Amino acid sequence: MPRYAFQLEYDGSGFAGWQKQANSLTVQECVEAALRRLDDLAGSVVAAGRTDSGVHALCQVIHCDLDKGWEGGKLCDALNAQLRPHAVAAVTAVRTDAGFSARFSAVRRSYLYRLMIRRAPMVLERQFLWQLSRQLDVGRMREAAEFLIGRHDFTTFRSAHCQADSPVKTLDGIKIETFERSGGLELRVRVTARSFLHRQVRSFVGTLERVGAGMMPPEGVREALEARDRSRCGPVAPARGLYLERVDYDPDPFAAGSAG
Amino acid sequence: MPRYAFQLEYDGSGFAGWQKQANSLTVQECVEAALRRLDDLAGSVVAAGRTDSGVHALCQVIHCDLDKGWEGGKLCDALNAQLRPHAVAAVTAVRTDAGFSARFSAVRRSYLYRLMIRRAPMVLERQFLWQLSRQLDVGRMREAAEFLIGRHDFTTFRSAHCQADSPVKTLDGIKIETFERSGGLELRVRVTARSFLHRQVRSFVGTLERVGAGMMPPEGVREALEARDRSRCGPVAPARGLYLERVDYDPDPFAAGSAG
Repeated sequence: MPRYAFQLEYDGSGFAGWQKQANSLTVQECVEAALRRLDDLAGSVVAAGRTDSGVHALCQVIHCDLDKGWEGGKLCDALNAQLRPHAVAAVTAVRTDAGFSARFSAVRRSYLYRLMIRRAPMVLERQFLWQLSRQLDVGRMREAAEFLIGRHDFTTFRSAHCQADSPVKTLDGIKIETFERSGGLELRVRVTARSFLHRQVRSFVGTLERVGAGMMPPEGVREALEARDRSRCGPVAPARGLYLERVDYDPDPFAAGSAG
Repeated sequence: MPRYAFQLEYDGSGFAGWQKQANSLTVQECVEAALRRLDDLAGSVVAAGRTDSGVHALCQVIHCDLDKGWEGGKLCDALNAQLRPHAVAAVTAVRTDAGFSARFSAVRRSYLYRLMIRRAPMVLERQFLWQLSRQLDVGRMREAAEFLIGRHDFTTFRSAHCQADSPVKTLDGIKIETFERSGGLELRVRVTARSFLHRQVRSFVGTLERVGAGMMPPEGVREALEARDRSRCGPVAPARGLYLERVDYDPDPFAAGSAG
């Protein structure tokens, strides 16, 4: 059966996360049901990142085997027609070789976390960012973030439900940009690594927020990391500010891909 | 009674526009009800722009007379507490002199219209832009837009329900910027004038879209304008892409304003 890869976008607000589960609407279930309406022999869908409940995707990558052969653009349109009215869309579809895995072939994943510092409630994007009314010291947050880069045992920043074999991961980068807008200050935290532990990004952001608010010195993050103790992590930041932004492959199956 | 001016932000999706009406939820009704819960002698609210059903505001300006004296920041917080859970928030509140009018003192209004050209449906911002799947020739649209700048009789671009005394207005500027993002091309059309006719911006955008799509030559816009004939206008663009973005005053009551 030919294998296809898709770049998906979704608003996580109305979903109980990516992964299929009983009694809750998940993105995986929507996508698999839509693909089965196109092709009743469609296989199950494998994703690059199993996003949590409420987490969004600017670009989730999935793969699936289909019985029929499709041209990428037509497959994309057909899938989108079946996905309506759910808040998930395929932006691109391409045929890949049989060895491609959206999950195991990924060489890098990038997440974006958006925080908004403003006293007035956000009304235009409230389900898309974490709003705080207190000021944060971004310089201290950047200083603290540096301690997280590199290969470490990230037990402190890993959910108790994490199923990864090892807590040792290599964090390639963590960058904090700021934008003045809408009478407030938006912080965009971008984090990249080959792979992540469960709730790792939200654990980072929740801890960095404590540093920015002056409740923890920047060195406290290094100490928390070295302690390998979950209780040293700050509160986990809310899901609504988190986006799976990008997944990289080498070779990139979408490089010459037909745009949906 | 002391007079206060507010900068408001709202998601127009759930409102039947700014202006109060029987049997429909409007922004004005929400704001007046919230102000009366703070001050039962609060006067009626006057807005810089009477936005239509589904139109958003990044910065609507209103004024209102209150019985009590308030510090701006406290008034802003108190109003926001009363506005919950409606998708409207006050970003700033300031005390003004008694002669200030949000409507009549405005020297310039700026509207933003967002179009997205992408084949895949938008899921993250679908109620915040007009999505098109066909390509548009932005160069032709810019050429056509030039004909609209200046003082003209805008009868062609005015709704049949427009209540303005005269169809003659001076358009200060109309600019089209493009941004590649999310697998598509976003167009942002910014239009500025002292005041506008009813549906003028959406009539402009709907007509310029026809030019971009190749259905009308750029000079067709000049001819349509000169014809002073509503039937020469393109289809009115949907409300969901339109935002009241900015209102200018001279002097600016918010210049030294206490941020909400």
